[in-house]
Amino acid sequence: MDETAKAEPRFFEDIAVGERFHTASLTVTRDSIVDFAGHYDPQPMHMDEGAAEESFFGRLVASGWQTLCLTMRLMVEARPFGATPLIGIQIDEIRFQRPVLPGDRLSAELEILEKRISKTRPDRGFLKGRTITSNQKGAEVASQLWTMLVPTKQAP
Amino acid sequence: MDETAKAEPRFFEDIAVGERFHTASLTVTRDSIVDFAGHYDPQPMHMDEGAAEESFFGRLVASGWQTLCLTMRLMVEARPFGATPLIGIQIDEIRFQRPVLPGDRLSAELEILEKRISKTRPDRGFLKGRTITSNQKGAEVASQLWTMLVPTKQAP
Repeated sequence: MDETAKAEPRFFEDIAVGERFHTASLTVTRDSIVDFAGHYDPQPMHMDEGAAEESFFGRLVASGWQTLCLTMRLMVEARPFGATPLIGIQIDEIRFQRPVLPGDRLSAELEILEKRISKTRPDRGFLKGRTITSNQKGAEVASQLWTMLVPTKQAP
Repeated sequence: MDETAKAEPRFFEDIAVGERFHTASLTVTRDSIVDFAGHYDPQPMHMDEGAAEESFFGRLVASGWQTLCLTMRLMVEARPFGATPLIGIQIDEIRFQRPVLPGDRLSAELEILEKRISKTRPDRGFLKGRTITSNQKGAEVASQLWTMLVPTKQAP
């Protein structure tokens, strides 16, 4: 948070189509999988190895929501827009390509695909970007299309 | 979990287009907003009242990811498919209609819109459904289009 406060804000005009941002990485532990599931996705395949063996996945796997939330954390910490916050207003095309397993190390990247200024509010712009989350083997585990609201230089 | 285990599984064939499921409700506390943000979306507007006042939202608001995760928990607990798990393979059209504020009480509903059997695996079917999350005033805070994998009666 302190570092975010110190960074300069980037505005809509500063961010180019084609820009790419890479995050750091983090390890998804077995305990964090079970803990997350207990709060947000309390299903056997995310909580208990025995039950998970008999499930569709055949072993304990992270909730897809955990993968998405950890991707958000990695991206917030990467501060692609400097001190300007990441405000998502739509998310489309979320796909889960493969399961996230205990011990997997995740990282993410965002590529800006499109930008447009609001028709009704010239102080606001919208950026569309593809966010891809990968594991330690470089294999995609999830992808998403984010639409983000970013202030223009006309913002007060 | 015990109740889930006791429920009968429902199969693809058992679930009809037009079926609607309603969840229970839960209250989003100020502390849960800050705690969630610390783990998954560490931005000022979700963590600190003072900083939030100067943000786009003008006050402390829940991360959109928290709204989505709590919606998943409510839906898992509602067990729309009995003992058959909720396995999402795609999510589209996530929209955040209004912020979730400390003290808001959320509930959700799911309506099945479409079903089709896998072309390559006759033991699997796909259900598409709209999930809408509302606050205590009945106002929509988020909506999503879920594609779920459900076993057919041919599954082993």
